[in-house]
Amino acid sequence: MFEIHPMEIVGLVAATLTTASFVPQVYKAYKTKDVEGVSLTMFLAMFVGVLLWLVYGFYLKSLSMVIANIITSVLCLMILILKIKHKKKS
Amino acid sequence: MFEIHPMEIVGLVAATLTTASFVPQVYKAYKTKDVEGVSLTMFLAMFVGVLLWLVYGFYLKSLSMVIANIITSVLCLMILILKIKHKKKS
Repeated sequence: MFEIHPMEIVGLVAATLTTASFVPQVYKAYKTKDVEGVSLTMFLAMFVGVLLWLVYGFYLKSLSMVIANIITSVLCLMILILKIKHKKKS
Repeated sequence: MFEIHPMEIVGLVAATLTTASFVPQVYKAYKTKDVEGVSLTMFLAMFVGVLLWLVYGFYLKSLSMVIANIITSVLCLMILILKIKHKKKS
């Protein structure tokens, strides 16, 4: 279903980095409950955008994009939930 | 150089959303100077990851990915600068 090419390694590292980048933000928001500086608009637009990247990734038959965008959408949703939950509490 | 296909529209909307999503975060960090809740690790990993997505986008000949990742890397860098500049000031 998916083609394998050496450049897929670059895609996989890119996917790992941008996907993993959401983890420290989820952790920070969960731990400190300080989400005042976090933009709700950013993570809302990001969430919808990531879902569309997922569709586009299927079209490009890019394994990196499909996997990365599934995980990113979940992490993004967690930040959104934490932002809404802890808003105006700090 | 780049192929045009109806699915490119989905890629372009995805690219526009995820790229534009950084704008409200840049604006919020610039305006409020409250960056305590913003994770430095997130935007560092994101910045490096986005640069690699750019390389991967050239390989896939995806116009959406190339344009989006150039703009995103600049916006990401702006958040990093604001985060470092206003850290521990709130």
